[in-house]
Amino acid sequence: MLNPECMRIVIIGSGNIAHFFTPRLQENGHEIIQIFSPNPENAKLLAEANNIKHYTDDLGAITQDADAYILAVKDDALKALNEKLRFENKLVIHCAGAVALDIIADISRKTAVIWTLYSIRKNNLPASNHIPLIVEANSDEALQGAEILANAISDRVLTTSFEQRQLLHLNAVLVNNFTNHLLAIAEKLSGEHQLPFDILKPIIEQTFSQIQKVSPSESQTGPAIRKDEVTMQKHLALLREHEAWQQIYKDISTSIQQTIKK
Amino acid sequence: MLNPECMRIVIIGSGNIAHFFTPRLQENGHEIIQIFSPNPENAKLLAEANNIKHYTDDLGAITQDADAYILAVKDDALKALNEKLRFENKLVIHCAGAVALDIIADISRKTAVIWTLYSIRKNNLPASNHIPLIVEANSDEALQGAEILANAISDRVLTTSFEQRQLLHLNAVLVNNFTNHLLAIAEKLSGEHQLPFDILKPIIEQTFSQIQKVSPSESQTGPAIRKDEVTMQKHLALLREHEAWQQIYKDISTSIQQTIKK
Repeated sequence: MLNPECMRIVIIGSGNIAHFFTPRLQENGHEIIQIFSPNPENAKLLAEANNIKHYTDDLGAITQDADAYILAVKDDALKALNEKLRFENKLVIHCAGAVALDIIADISRKTAVIWTLYSIRKNNLPASNHIPLIVEANSDEALQGAEILANAISDRVLTTSFEQRQLLHLNAVLVNNFTNHLLAIAEKLSGEHQLPFDILKPIIEQTFSQIQKVSPSESQTGPAIRKDEVTMQKHLALLREHEAWQQIYKDISTSIQQTIKK
Repeated sequence: MLNPECMRIVIIGSGNIAHFFTPRLQENGHEIIQIFSPNPENAKLLAEANNIKHYTDDLGAITQDADAYILAVKDDALKALNEKLRFENKLVIHCAGAVALDIIADISRKTAVIWTLYSIRKNNLPASNHIPLIVEANSDEALQGAEILANAISDRVLTTSFEQRQLLHLNAVLVNNFTNHLLAIAEKLSGEHQLPFDILKPIIEQTFSQIQKVSPSESQTGPAIRKDEVTMQKHLALLREHEAWQQIYKDISTSIQQTIKK
């Protein structure tokens, strides 16, 4: 039987998520009984930083005596772990937003995902208790265990289906990776025209503080929604040496006009 | 001769920019001697809110006795003003980021632009003194006058060429209008999948606070830059009913891969 107040956990991995989860789980009453990392130095560093006695770089030396195993590894390492690890009917959790649960189906019959919908960097861990965690599990029992752990890490836990989780992952790409690329284009164009990128920072900040007050669908402005073809043609001319960026300009402008029309 | 400590100014327009510029110019020693708006009620409201005695809705009643005329009107109203207004050799300033200076060439021989690189809303005027203003002028004399006024409004004034100003306008579209559209897509997709848009707000905020510390070119993450084709195909499949959004996904992913390669 699980003790929801104190679960005994093995952390497999020593990267950003391992650094984030380990102290938070400890602070909330759970016991990290072992750290595994293929890099022995990293296993030791993470263990010692959190007063954890047992650590190893040997997959075969991972204890069977835990309630839960958190696989905090890169997406493409999960498949190899699935071939090598067996924890019978223990709760096994992976942390990869875009990866299906069944990638770890051979490790245990009780599997779940806890995915952090935020970019975690071990050298700058968030202080907030509201970092969103997305939970999915393959059974009610697995869900119960995963939710106990997720709630120990954050007070913003959302349980979803696999399709919903993939959609959230796509949305994270749109609002983080893609918006960042638009900023990077603006930065490069600024450099090409001897302009300081800094001068754009107030309007960048404004764009994203605006969503705290108004839905982005309702606050759309700009030449596309005004159907200001003259300005749009000028902008495309400025991008004449950047075909890929011209394409983005055209497609987002088209999408703004279509999306608002609906 | 201009008195740089106290210029006598007519504000033509009663919208967001007129509401922003009027009190700031007054607070910094300049005198607003008249307000014009085609809507008499709006002219009166702006004048009375700022203790300005003279206001009118009659273009013909605008005094010739000012040092500078600020045309704070919509882009497409400038052409009509150019046909109707004549202020000899007085400083005449328009405020439209994407519009060339010569659109007001018939009004005066001394013309300039003061463009606010920020979205100003009269009901929520910024308190900051760092709202970027972009200045351009058709002569040294016009530039001197425009810079006096711009510096009275903000301590973040940048003088540029027309090409640079257009580029900044394009950049503002990229970092404001286009990023906002990506957020709007994520919001709509969330709704379609019964997910709260709110759960994305921490990562949205993270994206844009990140640029205070790291150049966006250097902080690019996501499936495109990792060349994670499996995840990208899953995301495109999730967008199968939204052709325009699929196109944006493909183009930005391609551009991320090309831009970083360079």
